[in-house]
Order: sequence, then structure tokens, then C-alpha cells
Amino acid sequence: MGIGKSILGLAGWLMATFAAAWIGSRYRPGAWYALLAKPSWNPPNSVFGPVWTVLYVLMAVAAWLVWRKAGFSGAGPALIVFVIQLVLNVMWSYLFFGLHRPDAAFVDIVALWMAILVVMILFWRVDWVAGGLMAPYAVWVAFASYLNFMLWRLNRGLLPG
Amino acid sequence: MGIGKSILGLAGWLMATFAAAWIGSRYRPGAWYALLAKPSWNPPNSVFGPVWTVLYVLMAVAAWLVWRKAGFSGAGPALIVFVIQLVLNVMWSYLFFGLHRPDAAFVDIVALWMAILVVMILFWRVDWVAGGLMAPYAVWVAFASYLNFMLWRLNRGLLPG
Repeated sequence: MGIGKSILGLAGWLMATFAAAWIGSRYRPGAWYALLAKPSWNPPNSVFGPVWTVLYVLMAVAAWLVWRKAGFSGAGPALIVFVIQLVLNVMWSYLFFGLHRPDAAFVDIVALWMAILVVMILFWRVDWVAGGLMAPYAVWVAFASYLNFMLWRLNRGLLPG
Repeated sequence: MGIGKSILGLAGWLMATFAAAWIGSRYRPGAWYALLAKPSWNPPNSVFGPVWTVLYVLMAVAAWLVWRKAGFSGAGPALIVFVIQLVLNVMWSYLFFGLHRPDAAFVDIVALWMAILVVMILFWRVDWVAGGLMAPYAVWVAFASYLNFMLWRLNRGLLPG
């Protein structure tokens, strides 16, 4: 692959990932989130932005490495599951911050976590660096799933439905 | 694998699949759905139950064939993506019939369709019969996605948000 196509590919994966980040960021913690009971170890709001920025860059680079090495023909399922996890990621923001449904969001984030594990395994087989770049994301989403679960349990009375 | 374990496995996959079907079936077309403008080729409500019953059986048998042949160790990613597509399937019913959000449901069903394609490809590599058993499901969900899209476009004024 020429360096031009390679760089264009990196830009493409970064754009795909940050498009998902941008859509998700339209659903933000507001008054509703501020009023939720939170566990003592709940990180301050300011932590999430920088963490997610790093994770989005890492996952874009991981997808780019796999795409560059194996292409869609060689790593089609892995790259499609990568796109699916982006959709699940956006849908989490929509369900949690948009619809105020920590219960449905928890179901979503568990599916997201499983999708990330699949991507990590399939990427690892193509390029171990790419698999490794997904690891911080998997760890963070495991933590976020637990946080989501606690916010659901601690606020059952406040939720619709 | 002994025949006892094999039959137990089939029962397990059928139970997993029908558990998803059962949760999804709690969100049903009601007065809201009846009032939606529909395309002329919208199937009557009575079609969906039998079609989905067949598709749930086919997908359970497909997962069972793959599990029997390769196990979780040999086909882990494929079987995890199978579970992810079950979650996306249930979430569709929740978003569409539960929350009356054809827009969010459309995003979900496109991700579902992609997940089914990945499962079909990964199952095919283990056992072509298993891959083939997923094909009617992929075709139906492609049709359902188009139907979902039309219901969204035809009823934009009626929707919340």
C-alpha cells in the first residue's frame, strides 16, 4: 500500500470514530445526571472527555492497522464488528443521557463490551499491536458497565417506566 | 461429543434464543402501531409471529451446529457475535414498540443486520450448513430494515423528539 492511501485510510478511520463520538456527545450529562445518586468512586465529569478522546484515537489506530494489513477482504468480519461496537457506543449515550434509561443502557453496554472483546480477539489475530490498542477500551467499558449498573440500582425510584 | 451433551446443547441454544424472543415479545404492536401510516406492501401483523418463530429455530440450530463442531474455544468470536445480535434483536423491539422510536430502532436494526452478516460469515467457515441457516434471517432483517425505514419516513410528524 502506498503511503498516500495509508494516510488517507488513517484519516478515514479517525473520521468514522470521531463521527460516532460526535453523535454520542450530543447526549450529555445535564440536570438529570447531576441529580442521580452516585457511588463514592464515581469519577468527576471532567475525567470522561479526555479518557474518551484517547480511547477513540486508540481504537481508530487499531482499526487502521488491521485494515492496512488485511483489508476488508482479509478482515471483513473484524472490521464490521468494529463498526457495530461504534453503533452500540453511540446508542449507549442515547439510551443513558438522551432517554434517561440506565436499565436499557446497561443491556446495551454489556453488548458493547462483548463486541469490544470480539474485536480485540479478531484484531489480535491480524496484528497483536492492534489487539493491544483495544485493551484500554475494553477495561474502561468494563468499569463503565459497573458504574452504569450502580447508577441504575441506586436510582431505581427516579427512573421512568 | 456424547449424544446427551449434544442434545443438552441444542436445548441450551433454543432456550437462549427463545429467551430473547420472549423478552422482545413483551413489546408489541398496539394502538400506536395501528395508527402509523404504512406502505402498501406492509405485511399483516399475523405474518410476523410465524416468520419469527421459524427464524428463531433456524438461528438456534445454526449456533448449536457451530458450538458442537468447534466449541467456545474454536468459535468464541462467532458465538459471542451471535449473542450480540440477540441483544440487538431484543433492543429493536424495545426501541420500536416500547419507546415508539422508529429512528433509533432503524440505527439498531442496521447494526443488527451487520451483526447477522458477520455471524453468517463466521459460521460458514466452521460449517456451511450453519452459515446457510442464518441466510433467511439476514434476508428477513434486510426487509425489516427497509420497512422500519419507510415507517420512520412516513410518520415523522407523529414521533416524539
